[in-house]
Amino acid sequence: MKRFRVVFQPGGREIYIPEGITVKDAINMAGIGFDFPCGGRGKCGKCRVRILEGAGRPTAADKEHLEAGEIEQGIRLACLTIINGDLVVELPYETIPEHKILLATEERSVKIEPHLTKTCVEMDRPSLEDQRSDWQRLKDALVQKNEKYKDLEVPLQILRKLPQTLRAAKYRLTAVTDDRHVLGIEEQDTTGKMLGIAFDIGTTTMVGYLLDLYTGEELSVVSALNPQTRFGADVITRITFAGQEENGLEKLQSAVVEMLDRLVGEAAEKAGVTRDDIYAVTVVGNTCMHHLFLGLNPQYIALSPYVPVVSEPLTFAAEELHINVNPAGRIFVLPNIAGFVGADTVAVLLATEMDWSDRIKLAIDIGTNGEIALGSRDRLVSCSAAAGPAFEGAQISSGMRGAVGAIDHVRFGDGVEYSVIGGGKPKGICGSGLLDAVAGLIEAGIIDKRGRILTPEQLTGTPAERFKDRIVRHEGANAFLLVDGSATEHGRPIMITQRDVRELQLAKGAIATGIQVLLDKYGIGVGDVTEVLLAGAFGNYLDPHSACVIGLIPPELEKKVKMVGNAAGTGAKLALLSQGEFRRAAAIAGFVEYVELGSYPDFASIFANSMSFPTISK
Amino acid sequence: MKRFRVVFQPGGREIYIPEGITVKDAINMAGIGFDFPCGGRGKCGKCRVRILEGAGRPTAADKEHLEAGEIEQGIRLACLTIINGDLVVELPYETIPEHKILLATEERSVKIEPHLTKTCVEMDRPSLEDQRSDWQRLKDALVQKNEKYKDLEVPLQILRKLPQTLRAAKYRLTAVTDDRHVLGIEEQDTTGKMLGIAFDIGTTTMVGYLLDLYTGEELSVVSALNPQTRFGADVITRITFAGQEENGLEKLQSAVVEMLDRLVGEAAEKAGVTRDDIYAVTVVGNTCMHHLFLGLNPQYIALSPYVPVVSEPLTFAAEELHINVNPAGRIFVLPNIAGFVGADTVAVLLATEMDWSDRIKLAIDIGTNGEIALGSRDRLVSCSAAAGPAFEGAQISSGMRGAVGAIDHVRFGDGVEYSVIGGGKPKGICGSGLLDAVAGLIEAGIIDKRGRILTPEQLTGTPAERFKDRIVRHEGANAFLLVDGSATEHGRPIMITQRDVRELQLAKGAIATGIQVLLDKYGIGVGDVTEVLLAGAFGNYLDPHSACVIGLIPPELEKKVKMVGNAAGTGAKLALLSQGEFRRAAAIAGFVEYVELGSYPDFASIFANSMSFPTISK
Repeated sequence: MKRFRVVFQPGGREIYIPEGITVKDAINMAGIGFDFPCGGRGKCGKCRVRILEGAGRPTAADKEHLEAGEIEQGIRLACLTIINGDLVVELPYETIPEHKILLATEERSVKIEPHLTKTCVEMDRPSLEDQRSDWQRLKDALVQKNEKYKDLEVPLQILRKLPQTLRAAKYRLTAVTDDRHVLGIEEQDTTGKMLGIAFDIGTTTMVGYLLDLYTGEELSVVSALNPQTRFGADVITRITFAGQEENGLEKLQSAVVEMLDRLVGEAAEKAGVTRDDIYAVTVVGNTCMHHLFLGLNPQYIALSPYVPVVSEPLTFAAEELHINVNPAGRIFVLPNIAGFVGADTVAVLLATEMDWSDRIKLAIDIGTNGEIALGSRDRLVSCSAAAGPAFEGAQISSGMRGAVGAIDHVRFGDGVEYSVIGGGKPKGICGSGLLDAVAGLIEAGIIDKRGRILTPEQLTGTPAERFKDRIVRHEGANAFLLVDGSATEHGRPIMITQRDVRELQLAKGAIATGIQVLLDKYGIGVGDVTEVLLAGAFGNYLDPHSACVIGLIPPELEKKVKMVGNAAGTGAKLALLSQGEFRRAAAIAGFVEYVELGSYPDFASIFANSMSFPTISK
Repeated sequence: MKRFRVVFQPGGREIYIPEGITVKDAINMAGIGFDFPCGGRGKCGKCRVRILEGAGRPTAADKEHLEAGEIEQGIRLACLTIINGDLVVELPYETIPEHKILLATEERSVKIEPHLTKTCVEMDRPSLEDQRSDWQRLKDALVQKNEKYKDLEVPLQILRKLPQTLRAAKYRLTAVTDDRHVLGIEEQDTTGKMLGIAFDIGTTTMVGYLLDLYTGEELSVVSALNPQTRFGADVITRITFAGQEENGLEKLQSAVVEMLDRLVGEAAEKAGVTRDDIYAVTVVGNTCMHHLFLGLNPQYIALSPYVPVVSEPLTFAAEELHINVNPAGRIFVLPNIAGFVGADTVAVLLATEMDWSDRIKLAIDIGTNGEIALGSRDRLVSCSAAAGPAFEGAQISSGMRGAVGAIDHVRFGDGVEYSVIGGGKPKGICGSGLLDAVAGLIEAGIIDKRGRILTPEQLTGTPAERFKDRIVRHEGANAFLLVDGSATEHGRPIMITQRDVRELQLAKGAIATGIQVLLDKYGIGVGDVTEVLLAGAFGNYLDPHSACVIGLIPPELEKKVKMVGNAAGTGAKLALLSQGEFRRAAAIAGFVEYVELGSYPDFASIFANSMSFPTISK
């Protein structure tokens, strides 16, 4: 079999690959974090790379998604380009993602109560008068410090190192324990240091927070693209991949586990500590991320009646998943509520303490799936709304993630103003930018209640006449030219097309439906909601006014909107710092009622109503 | 590097080996169970093989241990013969050992109470109205059957197979649990079958008993030579090997674990069941066997103050040691008492119920180390006496194990009568035969109180004159010719040499010392002992009268001797059938006082007295 050399620029990473695989496969093999929103099926046209040397003939998909000039420059879709010779490939800048991750601005107080305990004990040496076994000697010393250790169990791997450790340490060592087991033994007194790391595994982004388990101090924060995006952008694509590809589940699991392990290393390095200092890891994520992380079959989440394998909190040894922390390290996975309302939502509720609130609040975590929870300490209901990937820029003509080069905010004044993440010329538009753009177009009267982009003629004589020239024809419909090709990085224009508006209507309609159904189910009106808590990266970037203009959030609630940052991450941190908070998470998961939107009696009509834009009362 | 072909006869097993290794190494590599009593150091001269083709020059060790005629026939010591060409090697018949293993003749009653529980549950299928997770569904069904399951924990590997199993089984399955964990799930109702296997890992022999965990019925018994004998005959040699050889501990552990696993397979096959039907394994052995089985460093057992790593009972998953039984299978290891009084002694006490006895009993398990326990339900004391390998035929001129060809009993009448295991011509003498022979020689007046073999002249005029011609000179001392070379299988004579008698004196003196020290420590006399329980293979073969004649057992107790078979094995079976008995074993281990013989004040003088033979009162 022939082998070819592929060099990736910038950076010059070089690999040798077998004949006949795709550039996508080569990118994956090289371990480069690259995004294939449609899962690599040539459908989305987003995985552009430029073949600097060795470009072959374009594929049908290339011709469909790329312009002739681009093809001439060597641009190709990585997913379908077969490698038949040595290549030099230029990757777009985004492949090393620089996500803006918002952290919670206000953190709530927590009683620090670590999951593991370190106890330093000093023992008498054995003698002919005191022939207790090594383990008995250690256990007796621990029991002397605390009666609760009298039923302590010890695993074989600790017994295997006990004799040497005991003698090397001259009978003075530190035991790491939970309530029932010895998890580790360390020479001398190491009680001073015990760190933990809290992970929020998002469908798109993974974030880790390294904390001191004694003080709660945050030592470093790390994040990365969830490497599973290689296999598909959203939950459903990944579940399909897990079920249909050979070893699909294993591939997805090892991708996320390896990245998590790498982030652990990064977090330690950034904080100037070692992996060995880390004893506890908490993990939150939606139910699918949860299952894929644990290697649990997610198949039945996606099929009616949408049943997860497990909802309860889980605890196990870090080494069971090959997460390289201290050998005593334990992983604590927060519980799920249902197939599409996962541990991340539990963490949001934990962070926002909605389970203890005496006033009714509405929490929304908007992503590909929007998780919504409503209620107070008396009752909590939740649902998941399938918003689709529009808020993340997918399915949008110039859509992209909230990365460098994305238009993230738009304002309509005399002209159109926008801001670009990282400065410079824009390359596309992300969810928050799209929201602003469409809200602005509605307020300007360019898009009507039903979502139609008006023609230049229809704008004549209205205040929007100034934007008349920006209305262009695209794919047989009207589109709004947001940025001319001359002002973009790649020379292609950035437009809001009629299809983009439709996609956004579907997405926001799904969320709005979820909110309405929960209000219905709870038996209250919008007016009863005292606070709207927006969680997650997108929720914290969007402009609440725009969200209310398009009806993503009921306009009546605009003044009640509060950003709560990455509340899922905050919840993971709380559960890391405190056993009590971890137990409280289990109580929350058991308390929240889950509402299956699809089987809700009035779902269809509520959804139909939620698609249109609210009437603007200026 | 050159490679040579080695063929083993009979059987024709053929392997290719690198140049320069020994025949011993080749035997080990071929996986042949062969015995190297001195650990392969050319000291004992027992590992004779015959090189049929390719024999080279004899080594110094060959010349020391073999006769010229034997060397000419191609006989060599396997341990030191370096292979420098293709070989055909004839192995002695004993290499496939046929041990006679005695089972307990009377078994005591036990309340059957298995460690694991099987519960069959039938569940409602999930629906949009009942979206409980798979695990919640199963757990709820279990809790409905028994409240105790409400805190049941489930490991990841069960969750990983749960969705498929549940659906394949149409929501009817059997859960295997202990009190706190789900250990296994099986489709449909499998509650009818649950087997277990109890192992007694002896320094020399391993025995396994396959039992029905519901009825206690014994389905099969299997045994094999402990393959660690390759690395040394006794506990001390093996501890040395573990400490000094590269990966010595790992080699010893995998040898015994692999053999145990093989015996599990054999036991299942013999009983017409599968490995998957086996859910529980109990293990007893002396402390060193215990440590080596678990991969625990045995080094400090052999060094003063003789401290084991652990004495408590241990429980863990069978797969943790790669024992191939049902995936839910658990291993239960009985507790030790001290470095040289192990779980096998605990099992003997459990089987004989000495912990509940209202009368004082003495239990003796004679092996390389003799474990001795004395007492009643009010108090139990124990010790270990380093008898050395003489009772197992090692260090004895014509000594051999109790295998085919061994003289196992001797009677002095007009002449000398003896029986041979397996019939046919004798090849050597085993421990029980040696005991009879020496006891007979004492009673005949041929050996005096101090252990000297008298000269033919000294026998003149005594009743022993008829044996005068059997007194021969050997290595500058007297020896008694038990079997002439013409009547043995190999043509060499079988003698009781002066050195043999000395070895036996040391061995029996050690045991007698242990008994005396325990009586002293307990503050009682021989007359207070109501029963002497002889456990173990050797204990069940020896003639109690002979044992009393040589003073191995105080002669006053001759009528009180009772054979209890492989009581260690019986204890392992009891602990397998009943959680209560397993817990009782822990109680016994905690109750028994251990006496360190070496540091006992009068040890030296007691030992000196115990070496001589008792005065015979006919």
